[in-house]
Amino acid sequence: MSKKKLPDIEKDFSKWYQDVVYQAELVDQSPVRGCFVIRPYGTAIWENIKSALDKRIKETGHKNALFPLLIPKAFLEKEAEHVEGFSPELAVVTHAGGKDLDEPLVVRPTSETMIHFMFAKWIKSWRDLPMKINQWANVVRWEMRPRAFLRTSEFFWQEGHTAHETVQEAEQEALLMLQEYVNLAQDYLAIPVIAGLKSDSEKFPGADKTYTFEALMPDGKAVQMGTSHMISQNFAKAFGMSYQDKEGKLAYPYLTSWGATTRLVGAMVMAHGDQKGLVVPPKIAPTQVVIIPILKKGADNGAVLAVAHQVKNKLEATQCSVLVDEDETKSPGAKFFKWELRGIPVRIEIGPRDIEQGKAVVADRLGEVKEAIALDGIDIFVVELLEAMQNKMFERAKARVQAQTFKKEKLVDFGKDLAAQGGFYRTGWCRNPECEKQLKQYQAMTRCLLKEKTFEKCFHCDQDSVSDVLVAKSY
Amino acid sequence: MSKKKLPDIEKDFSKWYQDVVYQAELVDQSPVRGCFVIRPYGTAIWENIKSALDKRIKETGHKNALFPLLIPKAFLEKEAEHVEGFSPELAVVTHAGGKDLDEPLVVRPTSETMIHFMFAKWIKSWRDLPMKINQWANVVRWEMRPRAFLRTSEFFWQEGHTAHETVQEAEQEALLMLQEYVNLAQDYLAIPVIAGLKSDSEKFPGADKTYTFEALMPDGKAVQMGTSHMISQNFAKAFGMSYQDKEGKLAYPYLTSWGATTRLVGAMVMAHGDQKGLVVPPKIAPTQVVIIPILKKGADNGAVLAVAHQVKNKLEATQCSVLVDEDETKSPGAKFFKWELRGIPVRIEIGPRDIEQGKAVVADRLGEVKEAIALDGIDIFVVELLEAMQNKMFERAKARVQAQTFKKEKLVDFGKDLAAQGGFYRTGWCRNPECEKQLKQYQAMTRCLLKEKTFEKCFHCDQDSVSDVLVAKSY
Repeated sequence: MSKKKLPDIEKDFSKWYQDVVYQAELVDQSPVRGCFVIRPYGTAIWENIKSALDKRIKETGHKNALFPLLIPKAFLEKEAEHVEGFSPELAVVTHAGGKDLDEPLVVRPTSETMIHFMFAKWIKSWRDLPMKINQWANVVRWEMRPRAFLRTSEFFWQEGHTAHETVQEAEQEALLMLQEYVNLAQDYLAIPVIAGLKSDSEKFPGADKTYTFEALMPDGKAVQMGTSHMISQNFAKAFGMSYQDKEGKLAYPYLTSWGATTRLVGAMVMAHGDQKGLVVPPKIAPTQVVIIPILKKGADNGAVLAVAHQVKNKLEATQCSVLVDEDETKSPGAKFFKWELRGIPVRIEIGPRDIEQGKAVVADRLGEVKEAIALDGIDIFVVELLEAMQNKMFERAKARVQAQTFKKEKLVDFGKDLAAQGGFYRTGWCRNPECEKQLKQYQAMTRCLLKEKTFEKCFHCDQDSVSDVLVAKSY
Repeated sequence: MSKKKLPDIEKDFSKWYQDVVYQAELVDQSPVRGCFVIRPYGTAIWENIKSALDKRIKETGHKNALFPLLIPKAFLEKEAEHVEGFSPELAVVTHAGGKDLDEPLVVRPTSETMIHFMFAKWIKSWRDLPMKINQWANVVRWEMRPRAFLRTSEFFWQEGHTAHETVQEAEQEALLMLQEYVNLAQDYLAIPVIAGLKSDSEKFPGADKTYTFEALMPDGKAVQMGTSHMISQNFAKAFGMSYQDKEGKLAYPYLTSWGATTRLVGAMVMAHGDQKGLVVPPKIAPTQVVIIPILKKGADNGAVLAVAHQVKNKLEATQCSVLVDEDETKSPGAKFFKWELRGIPVRIEIGPRDIEQGKAVVADRLGEVKEAIALDGIDIFVVELLEAMQNKMFERAKARVQAQTFKKEKLVDFGKDLAAQGGFYRTGWCRNPECEKQLKQYQAMTRCLLKEKTFEKCFHCDQDSVSDVLVAKSY
């Protein structure tokens, strides 16, 4: 790895992001436009996020299944809004097994149609409900302006799909999974988020309602972190998903779907990174602690290495993931640089002099702690430090977002600031899409509707506000 | 689930297999030819296999990464044997993002070409070696005669790809992973396997050597369980994967790749199933123990259910996965039928009379144990029973394979028996492909070469045998 300097994070955040994902070896460019290789370090972070979410998906009563990658193109056409929304992004297989296909297949952009086709086979009676399925999968949506993790032609995600007897149950499900996502973002990724409903123009093609959770990045742009939908009964009807209800009558189930993607990795990078590189929250860090033994070339480093491994074993006994960087060809300085770039939460330096004093130097990636700690209780110190860091990262991000959040009445007054500096703008809205369109001239859009109504009037027209709305620029 | 009878496993094994995978809800047919839906129960078994293998892949120093699904068609054409081998099976994307593509993309049938392209970027010096990468992925190879798990157009697998300085190191790697596969098959799936080299005509398109591990099914047909390849340096050269070696000279690395797929689930079904359905080895069973409380309709079943849950908690404390079937609408008999069909290793029946005696009836899925056991020590009894079952299933399968394995000298003498009843036939071979072709008339082929040489002459011609070979019919 060459020792390149990252672009100035304050002056060019976008360039900083583009460089840091490569330099920290999260991703690499692939020969296929819009598709990235997720390298081992990026994959390990995604696996940790996945495993935390998968556990909760199972604990809330869902079961994983695997559905085909390829979907008959005609399936997408069964629901008018759905096909209109996805058509421009489809990758289409026209040839397979040495022959032209009679009917083209699309690489799934999402699996509602395939899974609803199967639901129609499986749901015959109210006894089969609720049906609660999840799939971990790759999907393809052709992307014209690719950006690692944030906008990629192929991405990885989970997609939950459920069917229920009543609209209330379906709504409960959609909100439950939204809350699980919020918990994941806040408790694991240490990213504060705001959850709410998408406006009609921003909802999923084929949904009655789309719930979203939104985060604000340091450059003032919002990231849609994931969504949870109340799917229109049009789908149930298009796929003939009728069943016999408790009264023996024919009924159609109420559907939900919800998904979160590898985009979460990108949001984590942006939310916490600094001039030195990534800062990975301890709960999802593949390596939580790196131990750097201070080695002397040609000298006998046995004692130092032995202590380094003792500390490693001690920490691993507390479930920490630890790496000892034994490379004798690199200086401690080069190692500090490397592991800071990768955002390892805690660094421990152990040299001969430290050992004489029965101590080691513990430093955190936030630059707030750097202390000589007695080897005796170093495991307890590090475990507590990791916990404190996780909390501090969330609090720090929260304070930042608060400083970037504004309550304003009229777009004409706040539009220019929004366009120039970004940020979350909370305001009132009459819910007329014509007013929503006015946001475009400031490169902004509605992100979500908020529950609490605190404005009298719409941000644009003279009508009364129906609900508060969060407005921002976005990725 | 309807109570259908399975086809006679002795008379029509093939039909039995086809029915049991649906009735036990492992898979369902999808609307796309050759692609199956893997239902929650099948997915849970695959997740357990995956997690056991993933752990060993990481412990042996490999790192997971994620590479693009779509590969430029021209990449496959860079290695002549490779493209010839895979062309007939490719699914091709010709249209994406609303436009015809200038260059068609294939849905990966395997990722050598994509990963080698990236290796060429990453490997610049001997210090970058060995490079040891693994990917969990879906792949597509268009299948004309689909069969659930065994032959499917889309399947799931891991593919390991490594690069090394010396051919010896590469060989060591290929053999190490082969051994990991053998351990997985034998220790987790309880399937005895025979490992060895594929003949030249049966090796991977583009490999110098292919190691395989083969299992024999009750109907006498062999299943290739997975493979580990020494990849030809043609690949390294085609992708310009040169690096500076220790002497400062330009060199090409030695490559391996190795994969195991969802086919393992199918082999497990066939190797252990019986007339009642699946028998899932305890180590990969998503549910190891089902507790069936003997409930009376309309009566107060509180006491029975309470004890059932006490036993569940006790067992879960020993890491068992346990399910209590509380459904009041179904008879105990119907429940026995259902869980036997799904192959749950251990069943516990708890009725009011059992509780009076402080006991519960424990039965294993092999039909060998059915005993009233004191509730007091039931957890220890069950844990030991599960361990014993795992071993017994392996021993039982081993005895079966031994009874189906023959050592014979001449194809003319054993060919008819082989064609009629199947089985593993060990014999001598001169290594001439012309002799190998003779096997076709008996619907058989070479499965792998064996290390120990015990025959003087070739099974077909008068030439000396070069090595023993295992011959069988196959899936």
